[in-house]
Amino acid sequence: MKKGKATIHDIAEKLNITASTVSRALNDNPRISENTKKQVLKMAKQLNYQPNHIASALRSGKSKLIGVLVPTANRNFFSSVVRGIEDIANELDYKVIISQSYEDPEKEIQTVDALLNARVDGIIASIGKNTENFEHFKKILDKGIPLVLFDRITNELEVSQVVIDDYYGAYETTKHLIEQGCKRIVHFTSPKKINIYRERLRGYEDALKDANIPVDPALIEESNMQLEDGRTSMENIITKGIPFDAVFSSSDYAVMGALQVLREHKISVPSQVKLAGFGNEPFTSFTAPPITTVDQKSIPMGRVTAETFFELLKLEDKKSATHKTVLKPELIIRESSLKTN
Amino acid sequence: MKKGKATIHDIAEKLNITASTVSRALNDNPRISENTKKQVLKMAKQLNYQPNHIASALRSGKSKLIGVLVPTANRNFFSSVVRGIEDIANELDYKVIISQSYEDPEKEIQTVDALLNARVDGIIASIGKNTENFEHFKKILDKGIPLVLFDRITNELEVSQVVIDDYYGAYETTKHLIEQGCKRIVHFTSPKKINIYRERLRGYEDALKDANIPVDPALIEESNMQLEDGRTSMENIITKGIPFDAVFSSSDYAVMGALQVLREHKISVPSQVKLAGFGNEPFTSFTAPPITTVDQKSIPMGRVTAETFFELLKLEDKKSATHKTVLKPELIIRESSLKTN
Repeated sequence: MKKGKATIHDIAEKLNITASTVSRALNDNPRISENTKKQVLKMAKQLNYQPNHIASALRSGKSKLIGVLVPTANRNFFSSVVRGIEDIANELDYKVIISQSYEDPEKEIQTVDALLNARVDGIIASIGKNTENFEHFKKILDKGIPLVLFDRITNELEVSQVVIDDYYGAYETTKHLIEQGCKRIVHFTSPKKINIYRERLRGYEDALKDANIPVDPALIEESNMQLEDGRTSMENIITKGIPFDAVFSSSDYAVMGALQVLREHKISVPSQVKLAGFGNEPFTSFTAPPITTVDQKSIPMGRVTAETFFELLKLEDKKSATHKTVLKPELIIRESSLKTN
Repeated sequence: MKKGKATIHDIAEKLNITASTVSRALNDNPRISENTKKQVLKMAKQLNYQPNHIASALRSGKSKLIGVLVPTANRNFFSSVVRGIEDIANELDYKVIISQSYEDPEKEIQTVDALLNARVDGIIASIGKNTENFEHFKKILDKGIPLVLFDRITNELEVSQVVIDDYYGAYETTKHLIEQGCKRIVHFTSPKKINIYRERLRGYEDALKDANIPVDPALIEESNMQLEDGRTSMENIITKGIPFDAVFSSSDYAVMGALQVLREHKISVPSQVKLAGFGNEPFTSFTAPPITTVDQKSIPMGRVTAETFFELLKLEDKKSATHKTVLKPELIIRESSLKTN
C-alpha cells in the first residue's frame, strides 16, 4: 500500500475485489450485497479512508465526469437518453455534462474540444446530421479516451455503439398502415446519408414489397423534416394531385406539419388519410387526433450506452474493444392511423 | 514581455488595447473595427503568436468554459436561453457545458460540484423548484467564481440576475381574457414559493381587481403544473360544479391537460371556455385550437445573461458587483382565448 491517504483501490486490494465494487458499496448501491458493504465500510474505517472527489480526481487523473455530445438537448429523444445515462452514471458516482452541436459540424468539433477541456473521463456522442468528416472523433480515440456513440453513428469509426433497429420500427409501422387498408403511403425522409433515415426508408420499402405494393418514388418526400418541412412536403403532394391515403414520416415534427396542412385542406385524419411519425415526442399524444409513432426506447438506450461506456472505462486498451448493441423500438398505435367504420 | 510563447496579453500590451479586444479581433468579431483587426493580426504575426486554447487555459487558469445549470434542458424555455448564452459565448470563443438538476436539490448540489470539477470559468444557473437551501451557490461566490442567475432566482443570494417581468405577463394575459368577456377565470399556480409563480399569481389578482372582478379562491388551483396536474385541476373544478369561463395557467403543460379534459367533456374552446398558458412551448401552436400564451423572450434572456456574465468576468472582485435586468415578456394571442360570435 502507498503511503498517504487511502484510496478505494487500497480497499479493493485488501479485500481482493474490484475498485468499482468498492465504489458501489460506498455509494450504497442496491446491486452490492449487504455483506460486501459491511466489509468495505469496515476496511474503509481501518485504512482511515476519506472520500474526497476533487482531490481524487487530481491524483488519479479521473474527473468522474462524462461528457455527452448531442445535436440538441431539447429533443425528447436526446434528453431521455441523457436521463438514462445519468441514472447509471450517478449510481457510480459519475456526473454528466452536456454540450450541443446544433447539427453544425464546426460547432461539433469545438464541442469535442470543450469536453476534453473539461477533463472528462470519456465521451458519449450522437453525431450531427451534417457531419461528414470524423477526425474530431478519431482524435478522442487516439488520446485513448473512451468513446461510445448512440443512435446517430457512422461506419467510418471503429467504436462501441448503441442503436435502435430503425429498419424494424419503420417496417412495423408501414405494415400496420397497410393492415389498416392503406395502399398509397407517403414517406417523409432525409436526403442526408445518416444511417437512421436510410434504415427507416429501407423498412418502409420492404414492408410495401412484402405486401406486393409497388414502391412509388412520387410518394417519397425528402427534407430536413422540421415542422415547416413537413408542411411543405404535404402541400407538394396535395398540389401535384398525387393520390395518397397515409403519411409515414421519419420525424414526428414533420408529421405534425402534415397534420396541420391536412386540417387546413379539410382532409380528415384518420378517416381519409392516416398518419404515423417516428420518435414519440410528447406532443404526438397531445394532438387531436393523437398520432401513432415509434418509441425509440430512449431511457433504456441511455442506460445501455452508459453501461457500455463503463465497461470500456475498465479496459486498459480503449481502442481495441468495440461493442455494438441494437435495441428494438416499439410501435405506439394511436387514433391517427386507425381504420374508421 | 515574457520569454517564450506570445499571448494575447502581449499583443494587447504592445497595442495598448485590452486583451479582450485582441481576442475579439482574432475571432473576427463584427464589433471590432477592420483597422484594429489589421493591427492585431500584424502584431500577432510579428510576435509569432500561436493560438493554443488548452495550453492557454492551463497557463492562465482560464478554461474558456461556462457551466450552465438548468432544471431540465428539454424545456423549450431553458434550451432557448442556453441557445442565447451560446450565441454570445461563441462570439468570445467561450464554450458552454450544461448540467441538469432535474429539480432535485441533492442533484443540484452535485451538479455545481461537477461544473466546478470541469474547471468552468463561471456558472450561469436557474434554481430548481424544490431548492430551499442555497449553500452550494454561496460556495461558488465564496470561491470568487462569477455566478449569474436567470429566471428562477432567490432573494437569499446577493448575485447578478436576469428575470422577466412575470407580473406584467400575467397581468396582460388576465386583462386580455377579461376583454374577451371572461369573468370567472380559473388560475393554475404552484404551491412552491419560487418567485415566478408568486409574481404571476399577483398579476392575475391585480388584473381582476383593476376590472372590479372579485378574486375567488375557489378558482385558484395549486399543483406541480405538469400535464397530468392540469388534467386533475380541470377535473376538480368541473366535478365541484364551480362555474368558470376561462383558464389562465402559469404553465403551458398544465393548460394542455386542461384542454384535453375540456375536449373529453365536450366543452368547446374557445366558445364556452377560453384558455391561456405561460411559456410559449412549441406545442401550444400545434394544438387545435392553438393556445394563447406568454413568450418569455428566452433567446434575448440568454444573450443578456451571457453579457452580464462577461461583464462580471472582467471585474476583479466578482462578489461586489450585482446587476439585475428585467425583461418584458410578450403575450401571444391565439385562437384559444378569442371571443367567438
